[in-house]
Parts: sequence; structure tokens; C-alpha cells
Amino acid sequence: MNNLESYIEHTLLKPDASLNDIKVLIDEAVTHKFCGICINPLYVGIAREYLEKNPLKVVTVIGFPLGANLSSVKAFEVQKALEYGADELDMVIDIGAIKDKNYKRAENDIKAVVNAAEGKFVKVILETDLLSRDEIIEACKVSINAGAQFVKTSTGFVKGGVGATVENIKLMYEIVSPHDMQVKASGGVKDKETAIKMIKAGATRIGTSSGVKIVK
Amino acid sequence: MNNLESYIEHTLLKPDASLNDIKVLIDEAVTHKFCGICINPLYVGIAREYLEKNPLKVVTVIGFPLGANLSSVKAFEVQKALEYGADELDMVIDIGAIKDKNYKRAENDIKAVVNAAEGKFVKVILETDLLSRDEIIEACKVSINAGAQFVKTSTGFVKGGVGATVENIKLMYEIVSPHDMQVKASGGVKDKETAIKMIKAGATRIGTSSGVKIVK
Repeated sequence: MNNLESYIEHTLLKPDASLNDIKVLIDEAVTHKFCGICINPLYVGIAREYLEKNPLKVVTVIGFPLGANLSSVKAFEVQKALEYGADELDMVIDIGAIKDKNYKRAENDIKAVVNAAEGKFVKVILETDLLSRDEIIEACKVSINAGAQFVKTSTGFVKGGVGATVENIKLMYEIVSPHDMQVKASGGVKDKETAIKMIKAGATRIGTSSGVKIVK
Repeated sequence: MNNLESYIEHTLLKPDASLNDIKVLIDEAVTHKFCGICINPLYVGIAREYLEKNPLKVVTVIGFPLGANLSSVKAFEVQKALEYGADELDMVIDIGAIKDKNYKRAENDIKAVVNAAEGKFVKVILETDLLSRDEIIEACKVSINAGAQFVKTSTGFVKGGVGATVENIKLMYEIVSPHDMQVKASGGVKDKETAIKMIKAGATRIGTSSGVKIVK
């Protein structure tokens, strides 16, 4: 696979990331021609300035990593992220609503984000480590109905979680791809072999902090 | 210690908590006469309704658990939480700003929350597992300067984190108590013995999901 770098969102979401850590991340992403960076909202404006005219995508996270925020707050967070120059929004689904089979609530929550995003890509993080197979299927359907552009496996913040698995990527791809939606694999993708497996299973984006190692 | 229950904020912040889980939490808190419950923002309105006239404090979390949100978003989250009936706000400090020794940024972030809180108690979560002793001291000073009412140790979401320690509670108490501020111990307080140690070290609140076990 000779364009692996174009799949990678170089990711740094640790809460103790310093400004310098973010700059190193951006420099690496530019050097290796990654698709984008994925960073916390606090750093979107700084990243956009630091990038100047470089077209690297600045991806940020919304309601992250628990998803248990009010929809109005998620929408406001999107609005501010766009003001600071975010290109794409990775939101966490209302996991409690999926657990409660309250699919309408989960759908409305995503719709609030999609509406605020003004056409920018919205990726819905399902947090697959916390869901059963049936719940993953329902969460995909909800994301389709709400008009999101991507489903994404994981936040990387679940204690004891495994993150993306080939099985889940295949399942998600099978459900969303007929609706022109894409799949992002994230969480635990730490080497080239795993990244390629995810892409073969249907992922068109890889969220990872190991991007440099993966393309080397 | 015969009023241990009055120190306890019965806590459920798991992202996959269902509505029923929240109701069970509230019932337990009422039964055991706990000081309050600590829940995600999504459930504040429901909790307030379910409690009817019961004076149990509804505590919620802001910019949780990473703290790497924009100050304007944290402030908006406070505003909405108050609209839904929250009594106290536990916010996560801008950990990156502390790492960068950008104390002014950290202080302004807390101030934005304090201003939005309209006099309701603001507890600043330092996330002590990610800070050095010196950084904990600086984070306490920043919280004092910003006008918060509490410092609090932990979110409970750091992988491999230990949460509250007697040593950190003592340190935090020593710095903030001359300024009429209080200390909340949270993360890893799972039994009566540990709870009592935290209180003896200076904590006036215990955030725990093991409240029922602790008072039995």
C-alpha cells in the first residue's frame, strides 16, 4: 500500500498535551503528508494559524470523550470550532441513549451537531468497546438517519478498551457504505499491518498517534 | 465518624449510564442522606425533576474529563447546566496551560466558568495524576486567584491513575484553606477507611461511586 499516509489523521488528544506537543504533531503531519491532525478544541485556532496556508485538515472533537453533554452544548462547541478554523468534527454519540434504545434522542443529538457543522464532515464516534454488536448496528443506523458523513469506532479513552477491530470495521462498513458514508478506525491502531487490515476492512481514515511509525 | 454520609457526592459519570442507572443512583443518595449526586450534564434536568423537592445537591461536570475545551464552551455548558437545575459545577482545569506554565490562561479559563456559575460553587478538578507536586501547587494558586470555591483531585478517567491520595489532599488543603476554599477528594475512594483518611487530611467532600459501601 503506497498511499497509506493519505489515510492517517495524526492524533493527539491527551489532556496534558502542551503547545509544543501540538506543534511537533503538526510538523510531523506536514512532513509525512498525512490527511490531517486530530486535536482537542482548545488548540484548533493555534493549529490553524501555525499551518498558515497548508491544506492539512484540522479535525477536532466534540462532546469528547464521554458524549454525555447536552446537544445544545455539542452544537455550540461545533460553532466555536468552526470559528477557529476546524475542518471536520468528530463527535461522541449519546451512548446512554443507545443503551436505553432511545434512538430518537441519539439521532436528534447527532442532528444538532450536523446542523451546526454547516456541511463540514461529522464523524460519529460510537465507542464500540462499550456497545454490543446489536447496539453498534443501531448506532450506525442512527448516524445514517441523522445525516453524518462518517462513523468512527473509538475515543481511545475507555479503560481496558481495545479500540478498532477488523470485525467492527467490517460491520460498520457494511451498514453505512450503501448510504455513501465512510468509516474511521481509531483506538489501538499502532502499526502498519493493523492499519492496512483496517483499510482492507473498509476504513478510509485511520485515527492514530502512531502515524509516523506506521508509514516508516 | 458518624456523619460520613454528609460528605459524599454519590457519583456516576460512566458514558454508558442509562436513565435507570441514574434513578438508582438518586434513590440510593436519598436513602443514605448523601450530600449530593454527581452526574453528567445530559442527566441534570431529569435528575432535578425526579428529585422533586428533595434538597439533594445535583452536581455536574464541565469540560469533563479532559478540560481541553474552549473557555467559551465551558461557560456555555455551565449556563445550560444551571438552566436545567444544577447546584454545583465540577470543571476540569486547562491541564495543558499548567504544563506550559501559562497560568494566566488557566486562570482565565476558570474565571469564565466562575462568572457563568452566578455564585454556585465551582470545583476545579486538577487531575493530580497528570501533575507534579509543583504543578499541583500552581494549579491551586490559579484556582484561588480565579475565585473558585473548591479544588478537587481527579476525574477518575486517567488510565492507570490512582486518584485521590492523602498526600495530595493535605497539600491542596494547606494551600487553599487559608483562602476559605475547600477540597474534594475523588477517584479511587472505595471504602470507609480511605474516606475517613481523606476527611482527616482536609477533604470536606468525597466523590465516589462506592458511597453505599462506605456508609454501610
